[in-house]
Amino acid sequence: MTTSSPLPTPDEVFDWIDARAQARQEAGLARQLRPRAAGSDALDLASNDYLGLARDKRVAGAAAASSLKWGAGSTGSRLVTGSTELHTELELELASFCGMQAALVFSSGFMANLAAVSALTGPGTAIVADKLIHASLIDGTRLSKADVAVIAHCDVAAMANALAKRKHERALVVTDSVFSVDGDLAPLPQLAQACGKHGAALLVDDAHGFGVIGDEGKGAVHDAGLAGAPNVVMTVTLSKSLGAQGGAILGPRRVIKHMVDHARSFIFDTGLAPGSAAAALTALRVLKEEPDLAGRARQNALELTERLTAAGLRVSTPTAAVVSVRAPSPEAAVAWANDCRTAGVVVGCFRPPSTPDQISRLRLTARADLSSADLDRAVDVITRTAPGQ
Amino acid sequence: MTTSSPLPTPDEVFDWIDARAQARQEAGLARQLRPRAAGSDALDLASNDYLGLARDKRVAGAAAASSLKWGAGSTGSRLVTGSTELHTELELELASFCGMQAALVFSSGFMANLAAVSALTGPGTAIVADKLIHASLIDGTRLSKADVAVIAHCDVAAMANALAKRKHERALVVTDSVFSVDGDLAPLPQLAQACGKHGAALLVDDAHGFGVIGDEGKGAVHDAGLAGAPNVVMTVTLSKSLGAQGGAILGPRRVIKHMVDHARSFIFDTGLAPGSAAAALTALRVLKEEPDLAGRARQNALELTERLTAAGLRVSTPTAAVVSVRAPSPEAAVAWANDCRTAGVVVGCFRPPSTPDQISRLRLTARADLSSADLDRAVDVITRTAPGQ
Repeated sequence: MTTSSPLPTPDEVFDWIDARAQARQEAGLARQLRPRAAGSDALDLASNDYLGLARDKRVAGAAAASSLKWGAGSTGSRLVTGSTELHTELELELASFCGMQAALVFSSGFMANLAAVSALTGPGTAIVADKLIHASLIDGTRLSKADVAVIAHCDVAAMANALAKRKHERALVVTDSVFSVDGDLAPLPQLAQACGKHGAALLVDDAHGFGVIGDEGKGAVHDAGLAGAPNVVMTVTLSKSLGAQGGAILGPRRVIKHMVDHARSFIFDTGLAPGSAAAALTALRVLKEEPDLAGRARQNALELTERLTAAGLRVSTPTAAVVSVRAPSPEAAVAWANDCRTAGVVVGCFRPPSTPDQISRLRLTARADLSSADLDRAVDVITRTAPGQ
Repeated sequence: MTTSSPLPTPDEVFDWIDARAQARQEAGLARQLRPRAAGSDALDLASNDYLGLARDKRVAGAAAASSLKWGAGSTGSRLVTGSTELHTELELELASFCGMQAALVFSSGFMANLAAVSALTGPGTAIVADKLIHASLIDGTRLSKADVAVIAHCDVAAMANALAKRKHERALVVTDSVFSVDGDLAPLPQLAQACGKHGAALLVDDAHGFGVIGDEGKGAVHDAGLAGAPNVVMTVTLSKSLGAQGGAILGPRRVIKHMVDHARSFIFDTGLAPGSAAAALTALRVLKEEPDLAGRARQNALELTERLTAAGLRVSTPTAAVVSVRAPSPEAAVAWANDCRTAGVVVGCFRPPSTPDQISRLRLTARADLSSADLDRAVDVITRTAPGQ
C-alpha cells in the first residue's frame, strides 16, 4: 500500500462507518426501521398495495394454499428446480393481460430491472435514460458497461437528440412510466415515436402504472398503445397492485428467451416462492373480474389531491395512485410523517438520497379500497399536522 | 451517430438477439425452462433444498398461516411499510443462531450480496475477490466502482499479496464459503488471519454452508471460529437449507445499521413476503430442534461420493451437501442429465458460463432426507447413464 498510515486492527476496520453514521444523524438523514404489528388499525397511506389486494382473502388464501401444495420455496434457480407450472401459468396470463408476447417472472422487480437493462445492452451499445428512473434501473445501467446518456426528466427532445448523437447503433431508451416519488407520467407515445425514428428499443418500468392505469389496470404501456410493439419491453412488479412479491419482464418472445439465456439475476437467483407466484396469479384474476378497481384507485388519488390542494398544500397532479405532497425540508418531512403516524395515519416520507431532486415530501398512496371515512381522516390528519410552508 | 449503416426499423431492433440465440444453439448452450408439476415423483438431486425443509409441514404450514395473518406481500420497502414484527423476529434469531451481532433480511440472497459488497466498498477502496465467487458477488463488485483484484481460487498467498500491494487503505476480501459449483470450501481461518494482518474486512457468502456445515448447521463461518469477529460479515440465503425465499446479511451491529442507510437493494426493494419470512423462521427453529439434520446431509454427500467414485466417476470431495461429477463436454453433460431425468432422477447440469472454469458437470444435492433406497436409485441411474469419459 502506498499510504504510510498504520493499518486498522480488526476492531477498527469498520470505524469509517461510525463517521458516516454520525454525519447522517447530524443531517437528519438517519433511517429507521419501524416493524409493524399484524393487528395494527393505523390507516395505511404509505404502502404500494394500490388495490388493497395484499390482504384480500382470495389472494392471501392462494398464497397459503400454494405454499402447502408446492412447498415454502421454489428450491432452486428457475433453470434447475425453481420453475413450477405455477410460474408458467402466471407468465402466460401476465403477458396476455398486458398484451405482450411473453413474460418472465423474477424474485423481485429490482432483479427484473437489473436483467432488462443489463441483458439488452453492454459495451458498444448506448443507453439513454431519464434522470429520475428507479434505482434498480440505474444499477442495471451500471452493470451494463454501456455508454449511458442521462437526460432531463421527461424531456423528449433531449432524448431524441441523445439518440441522434449516439456513437453506437444499438440503443435502449430507459424510463419509468409513473415515477415513483412524484407520481408523474412519462410521455410514452412521444418516447416510442422517437425510438422508432432513431432505431432504438424502449424499456418502460411500469411498476407504478400496472394495475392502476388504463382499462382494467392493464398499465401505462398498454394505455399508450404500445403493447406488443416489436421494440418495446416493459417490467412490472408483483408486489404493488398484485399485493404479492416478485417482478416480471414482458416483451417480444425473443427478448424473453434471451433473458433465460443471459440475465444473471434470473440464472443465478432462486425462483420466486410458489406462494408469491400463486398470490400474484390470483390477484391478476381479481383485476379481470373487477375491472373498476384501477379506476377507484385513480379516483381516490384525485380526490385526495383536490382536498389537500384546497387546504393550501403543494400537491403534484396524480396520474396513477401516487399523491406527492412537498415538505420544506428533510427534517420537516420526518416530523410531519411522525405526527401523522402518531395520529394513526401512516404516510410515506421520501428524502434525499431517495429523492434525486433533493426535495423532501410526503408520499401518499390512494388505495382503491379507501372508504369515504378513510379519506376524511387522511385529509384531516395531514392538513392538521402540516408544517408552516 | 457516426456509423453510416441504415438504422433498424422497430421490427429489426432486436434482430441481434436472433444471431446470439443461433450461436448458443449451435454451441449446445441454449437454456430451457422445465416447469415441474406439483405431484412429481422424480427423485430430486438438483435443488438446493439441502435439509428437505421446503415441503416440511411445519415450514410450509408457517408460510401458509403467515400469509393469511399478514397478507400475501409485505406491501412496500422495508423502510416504509415492508417491515413486520416477523422480519425483526427472524433477524434476531438468525443473528443469534449464527453467533453474529445483528442481521438484515433481503428479498433474495442475490440482493443481499449486491448490498454487502457495494455498500461496504466504493471508489477509493480495494476489493480482493476469489475468482470463483458467486455471480451476485461479482455484480456487487461491478456496482461498487472499487479497485478489484481477482485472485486464483482459494489462494491465500495471492490474496495476502494483493492486500499488501493495494493502493487504498480500505479493503474487503470477498469469498464464498462453499463454492456452489464444485462444493469445495474456502480456507476461511487462513483468509481471516491474512485480513487481520493486512487491516482488511472479510465478507463470506455462506449460502451453501449455512444449515449444512458445523454444529447444528450454524455454517462455515461459525465452524471456522469467525462468528462475531469485528471485521467479518457473512451473507446467507433463506432459500436453500431453510427451504423458503430470501437472503440476509449478518455482521457487526454497525454494519447492519449501515446497510439500512446505504444498501440500494434494501432501500429500493419491496420487503420479503411475510409467508417466506415465517417459513425461514420456522425452518431455523427446526434446525435447532433437530441438530443432527446438517450431519445427515453431509453424511449422504460422503456416501454418494464414495459410491460414484468407486464406479469410476470423477467426483469432487464434498465439504457440505454439494457433490460435483465431471462431464467430458457441455453436450455430454446435457445428455447425461437428460438421461437421468428420463430415468426419474433430477440432477443439476452446470455448463459455461455458469461454470467459470469452463468445465461442465452434474451437480448433485445430497439432501438430509434422502433414504437408503433413494441413494441406491441415484447411484444406479447416474452410473448407468454416464457417458464414456
